[in-house]
Amino acid sequence: MNKSETAVIIVGGGVIGASIAYYLAKRGQSVTLLERGQLGMEASAAAAGMLGAQSEMEDTGALFQWARLSRSMFPELSGELRELTGIDIGLVREGLLNVALSDVQEEELRARETLQRAAGERAQWLSAAEATGLEPALSGATRGALYLPEDGQVEAPQLAAAFAQAAQVLGAKVQPYAQVQGLLTERSRVIGVMTAAGPRYSDHVVVAAGTWSGQLLAGIGVELPMFPVKGECFSVRTPKPLLKRTLFTPGCYIVPKAGGRLVVGATVVPHSYDRKVSLAGLAELMDRARGMMLSLGDAEWEKAWSGLRPQTADGLPYIGKVTAMEGLYTACGHYRNGILLSPITGKVMADWLLGADGDELASLAPWLDAFSPDVSETTLRGSRGDSALTLAHVRQ
Amino acid sequence: MNKSETAVIIVGGGVIGASIAYYLAKRGQSVTLLERGQLGMEASAAAAGMLGAQSEMEDTGALFQWARLSRSMFPELSGELRELTGIDIGLVREGLLNVALSDVQEEELRARETLQRAAGERAQWLSAAEATGLEPALSGATRGALYLPEDGQVEAPQLAAAFAQAAQVLGAKVQPYAQVQGLLTERSRVIGVMTAAGPRYSDHVVVAAGTWSGQLLAGIGVELPMFPVKGECFSVRTPKPLLKRTLFTPGCYIVPKAGGRLVVGATVVPHSYDRKVSLAGLAELMDRARGMMLSLGDAEWEKAWSGLRPQTADGLPYIGKVTAMEGLYTACGHYRNGILLSPITGKVMADWLLGADGDELASLAPWLDAFSPDVSETTLRGSRGDSALTLAHVRQ
Amino acid sequence: MNKSETAVIIVGGGVIGASIAYYLAKRGQSVTLLERGQLGMEASAAAAGMLGAQSEMEDTGALFQWARLSRSMFPELSGELRELTGIDIGLVREGLLNVALSDVQEEELRARETLQRAAGERAQWLSAAEATGLEPALSGATRGALYLPEDGQVEAPQLAAAFAQAAQVLGAKVQPYAQVQGLLTERSRVIGVMTAAGPRYSDHVVVAAGTWSGQLLAGIGVELPMFPVKGECFSVRTPKPLLKRTLFTPGCYIVPKAGGRLVVGATVVPHSYDRKVSLAGLAELMDRARGMMLSLGDAEWEKAWSGLRPQTADGLPYIGKVTAMEGLYTACGHYRNGILLSPITGKVMADWLLGADGDELASLAPWLDAFSPDVSETTLRGSRGDSALTLAHVRQ
Amino acid sequence: MNKSETAVIIVGGGVIGASIAYYLAKRGQSVTLLERGQLGMEASAAAAGMLGAQSEMEDTGALFQWARLSRSMFPELSGELRELTGIDIGLVREGLLNVALSDVQEEELRARETLQRAAGERAQWLSAAEATGLEPALSGATRGALYLPEDGQVEAPQLAAAFAQAAQVLGAKVQPYAQVQGLLTERSRVIGVMTAAGPRYSDHVVVAAGTWSGQLLAGIGVELPMFPVKGECFSVRTPKPLLKRTLFTPGCYIVPKAGGRLVVGATVVPHSYDRKVSLAGLAELMDRARGMMLSLGDAEWEKAWSGLRPQTADGLPYIGKVTAMEGLYTACGHYRNGILLSPITGKVMADWLLGADGDELASLAPWLDAFSPDVSETTLRGSRGDSALTLAHVRQ
Repeated sequence: MNKSETAVIIVGGGVIGASIAYYLAKRGQSVTLLERGQLGMEASAAAAGMLGAQSEMEDTGALFQWARLSRSMFPELSGELRELTGIDIGLVREGLLNVALSDVQEEELRARETLQRAAGERAQWLSAAEATGLEPALSGATRGALYLPEDGQVEAPQLAAAFAQAAQVLGAKVQPYAQVQGLLTERSRVIGVMTAAGPRYSDHVVVAAGTWSGQLLAGIGVELPMFPVKGECFSVRTPKPLLKRTLFTPGCYIVPKAGGRLVVGATVVPHSYDRKVSLAGLAELMDRARGMMLSLGDAEWEKAWSGLRPQTADGLPYIGKVTAMEGLYTACGHYRNGILLSPITGKVMADWLLGADGDELASLAPWLDAFSPDVSETTLRGSRGDSALTLAHVRQ
Repeated sequence: MNKSETAVIIVGGGVIGASIAYYLAKRGQSVTLLERGQLGMEASAAAAGMLGAQSEMEDTGALFQWARLSRSMFPELSGELRELTGIDIGLVREGLLNVALSDVQEEELRARETLQRAAGERAQWLSAAEATGLEPALSGATRGALYLPEDGQVEAPQLAAAFAQAAQVLGAKVQPYAQVQGLLTERSRVIGVMTAAGPRYSDHVVVAAGTWSGQLLAGIGVELPMFPVKGECFSVRTPKPLLKRTLFTPGCYIVPKAGGRLVVGATVVPHSYDRKVSLAGLAELMDRARGMMLSLGDAEWEKAWSGLRPQTADGLPYIGKVTAMEGLYTACGHYRNGILLSPITGKVMADWLLGADGDELASLAPWLDAFSPDVSETTLRGSRGDSALTLAHVRQ
Repeated sequence: MNKSETAVIIVGGGVIGASIAYYLAKRGQSVTLLERGQLGMEASAAAAGMLGAQSEMEDTGALFQWARLSRSMFPELSGELRELTGIDIGLVREGLLNVALSDVQEEELRARETLQRAAGERAQWLSAAEATGLEPALSGATRGALYLPEDGQVEAPQLAAAFAQAAQVLGAKVQPYAQVQGLLTERSRVIGVMTAAGPRYSDHVVVAAGTWSGQLLAGIGVELPMFPVKGECFSVRTPKPLLKRTLFTPGCYIVPKAGGRLVVGATVVPHSYDRKVSLAGLAELMDRARGMMLSLGDAEWEKAWSGLRPQTADGLPYIGKVTAMEGLYTACGHYRNGILLSPITGKVMADWLLGADGDELASLAPWLDAFSPDVSETTLRGSRGDSALTLAHVRQ
Repeated sequence: MNKSETAVIIVGGGVIGASIAYYLAKRGQSVTLLERGQLGMEASAAAAGMLGAQSEMEDTGALFQWARLSRSMFPELSGELRELTGIDIGLVREGLLNVALSDVQEEELRARETLQRAAGERAQWLSAAEATGLEPALSGATRGALYLPEDGQVEAPQLAAAFAQAAQVLGAKVQPYAQVQGLLTERSRVIGVMTAAGPRYSDHVVVAAGTWSGQLLAGIGVELPMFPVKGECFSVRTPKPLLKRTLFTPGCYIVPKAGGRLVVGATVVPHSYDRKVSLAGLAELMDRARGMMLSLGDAEWEKAWSGLRPQTADGLPYIGKVTAMEGLYTACGHYRNGILLSPITGKVMADWLLGADGDELASLAPWLDAFSPDVSETTLRGSRGDSALTLAHVRQ
């Protein structure tokens, strides 16, 4: 390995790749992050920044456990990043209301309350009057709401930028406009990456390229079924803040940002490889948001955008070591939860790469198995078409 | 008058002021145009650029006569401006469809067909099948359409810019960021204007400041009742052109621009002094536009904006000499028709200021009376409140 | 006064007007802020946000006393505004280096060190080696630097936005796009303002309209000589932060913002009423900045902008009661120090308007005399031309 | 080949790929253009649009012949594209001045005059007085200029957009956001491309992906040495047009666009894979441009940008059939001349793909040999490093 310029090359400068770079640099590891365009410009830039550990997860399985651990890391992380970079990641911990606008939704949310409480989390069903008491801007159609006081939010673009800057302050090399064309291997070992400007060698390679990870891994025969799910969003401004907490209902959320700004999202367009914001998508979101919140029609239009969320066949991210190829790791497929999961993903990937075998890592073992990128080859053989992506793949 | 730096000062750098400057400079007159901000940035920048001489006018009175004269000037003007400035004003002469989506609308449009033909204009009622034959993207809800082959369109921002640049090429002084605070008078004569940077003297002053004209004139006791009417618009892009002709229905138009761009407008918000684009306004426009045109939902969102149209109490612009004050002229209150009316307004104002008494001006006399800014003082006394603006004022 | 809709109308929604609205609302006063365009869009948006109480003031007179009081208010204010609005004003308290690049500059800065210390402030002359030790990016041309550890910086646009939003949260009415055309008076008393949408009545009016204040006051015969001084700026980005402290040398400053952004300013163009960023202005700033800081040439271009600083004839702001007209106050003419002076200006104006006669206000009396808007009429008679603006006016 | 969805797939939606699609569609060929991002967003969007057939070429070899043929196609093309799409490509045919600012430059330009005339082109040496007579804004440092009346310019972004839109109007499929990951081959034949959304099959594939073409071809073992050369540019605005003709001197050109806009370019940064606009690059360009043109310092700053020009080892583009792989064509490596060469490249590629063997193609044969992508394998073996790129490669 003596030609390695760095211990670890990370491919992808979104919030996941930047978090891994940060936690590695924090522990003194030499690390190089390569991003094909500008840092944090894809799904990380498009995210509304919800930390919806409870609101986004439908059960209390591995992903939920992972999510609540990650959520708990934000307060300390916020201070660290600000100290190193001056960037305020905009952490808000005011909770979230899962709003019911129909009987069916009410039932589902009441069931979720029970589930969340059983898992030891705070969750409280509010009547329409109670919910409107907390958030007077809630629409008259509100049947009630599940109040999740621990779920919060951050400014997603700032978080991605802060991770990347902090990594550099701590010694990482971070290179935008460095497109990785393929992984370099020698026998069954990854030895670096090929870029437009030539080869770059390292002991380890981490693929954290969001929805583009699958194609990079496929180039060396590692098949991780993935597909993009486009989400369209828009934002408006109000003269003074109308909400304290995020509102969330199926098909629509409204996240209150600093200074009266509201981010409204998001459509769900699977297998869309373009980033076009469609008129129909916006019109639909506007209708839903106005159905959930009073006087939103008066708000001032700001802008619309979209992003491609990296989804996997079974809805779980691929995080960890790729056993088929020595030196190769991946962390991708976080779908709608990349912002929320970025701290724990970065930290655990750093533990792993540094050979940690401490208690903490051991304690994560059961969950990490669930995210293993070692999907059964038998199951996936011949499965490159989209149809196969709807089958759950089998983790080894 | 020996301290005059210029024969004419024009207050206002929108499409009207710039057109007057152009026609004056073209005839060798020394002229200075003062604009408080950037040139062409208010209603002129917001306009969709329709040349709707027939589609916008509800009768065949003075304004209609004025409009069709102005429309006929565009082909020659387009060449002149391009020659002088290199700017292409984007003149398109493909006609316009007034689309009926209900029985009532059909009746109104058939009556308009009769009226337009009686006035000697081309106008043709098309069945739904005929209309859809011309424009296959028309919605299935179409009952038919009035085809006005002579109405066209331009790129409004380019027209305003081209007038201002061409005026300069021909010798006019054009100064952006020159805010006029008030008119300077001596006895019953206007002698110039006061700006933030001091007084500027001229023989004549033309107030062409759109919706801000009223307040400037009020400062010297000339009351011209005016109020702004906000219009909100948006644009989308399609991979290839879906329309050749502008579509127009009550409350909504869709103007096809070069390269597959579609401009959709416009809401009507009277007495709005802000330029906020509201979420409700956009949602309403989107619904209307999608009701008139197929597959618009797939189009790619571009942006939203708004402008303040300068409206008068009786819906007619104020154009001409203010007799109460020697040397004072105005050209304002063009409401939705400033782009269309800019050439004739500029040309006739130039005739006037240069003392033309030729046949051409004489022939305009009957119509010009209709636009006279000499409104009856009796009628308007004590009428500064908004309520009075809804009364028709009486032209002398 | 029974037709007053509000106790106080403030004209101008920049950082000064918004601060006054904030401190009035905080103390329960009914207050309406009217802004002709968007909030905080003129000089407040253009400012680099330096809190240069020591670096900007050439002596230790009234303005210096006022500045250091204001500077000391920021830490508490930052928390208050974040609590009320979620907006982080980006307060950084890392100090500032007044850099000497010549012998003459070194002498001046050493003299200033003595002066500042005599005034009880921290200030320390650093040799070139010491300065470069603190800021390794300092150019090799550095002769040394005066280190002012108490001077800091904020994000100016966020400060203006936070004041306006916080005022609203506390009950103030804040209206953008509400242009004030003139002050309404009755005998020798101000009773409100005239806007495009009609009259607005109040017990008190505060004119805080930056460089446009003079013309508004002139409309009722109150002459406060003022003129704009254009400043052009630009910003660049670096992959990781290169500076901790602001660098400042005659004709150029470099302010390090969060995330590796550097704001470079500013040219000084007196009597410029336009906001054009000129190529020559940028080229000159680039040269100066590269002379002060190493490797700035590698930084990534972001954007350029400009603002009009409101300057007065004698360089001191006009703050306080206008005795010639009952009910009239002003707070304008802060030149390059509006951001720094906004908290103390807002707070003291609120004290005044609320009739405070406490010890605190009394203690400010000697300094406040210096800023009195009651300039001698004799001195100023006939002085509307620019030439007179260079004469110091005499405060009564 | 029965699984082919289209006769031809073109990879790359810049001006070259779009031109090929246009000329194929015009002749009725089924064609699909795939672009990984937005259409025309890389080098095509960054270009100043000079049609410098004479000014850019240092000799009268194959590239010059190709360039003057292409230049002659613009007048007709401009009308065709406007007819089909409404887009005005902004063709200006006012000529170009190669300005000499030193004795050495004068000598070189006089030699070029002789060369151009010998080649049958118009070219005329102007004394300083004559040059300044034509363009009064030329700097006093001008020693004279070579006047090339046939060289012109277009609006590069509009040209790229118009080609793509016109192709669609004529039946081509054009898909933005369709990233091609690799070429699909079967034995020694190309059968299509692999995209993120799955395979796409065609009879022929044309790689027209600018500076990214090399890596795509390398993926199937075809080595075409290429490297990007970053160019940084900026634009300013003047109140009225100051130039009619493009000015050109080593290291700097100034292209007058419609409405007083001036585009200034361009730096030359070889082997740069990023698009960062550096402060040093801008400062250098500003100095050069101000040295060539008077009063440029007063112009208003607009914006800065950059692009990556696709350069080849010997400075000649790769255009034509790749003999090693049946069905494979390429058109890339146009360096600074992509806009100028786009019509001829599109037209001749269409001839080729349609099997034309007419006189016209035959007549191009000697020149086309010069652009053949069949570079000698011997020469290039082991040459992936940058060093080899400086060696001229040997065309077969």
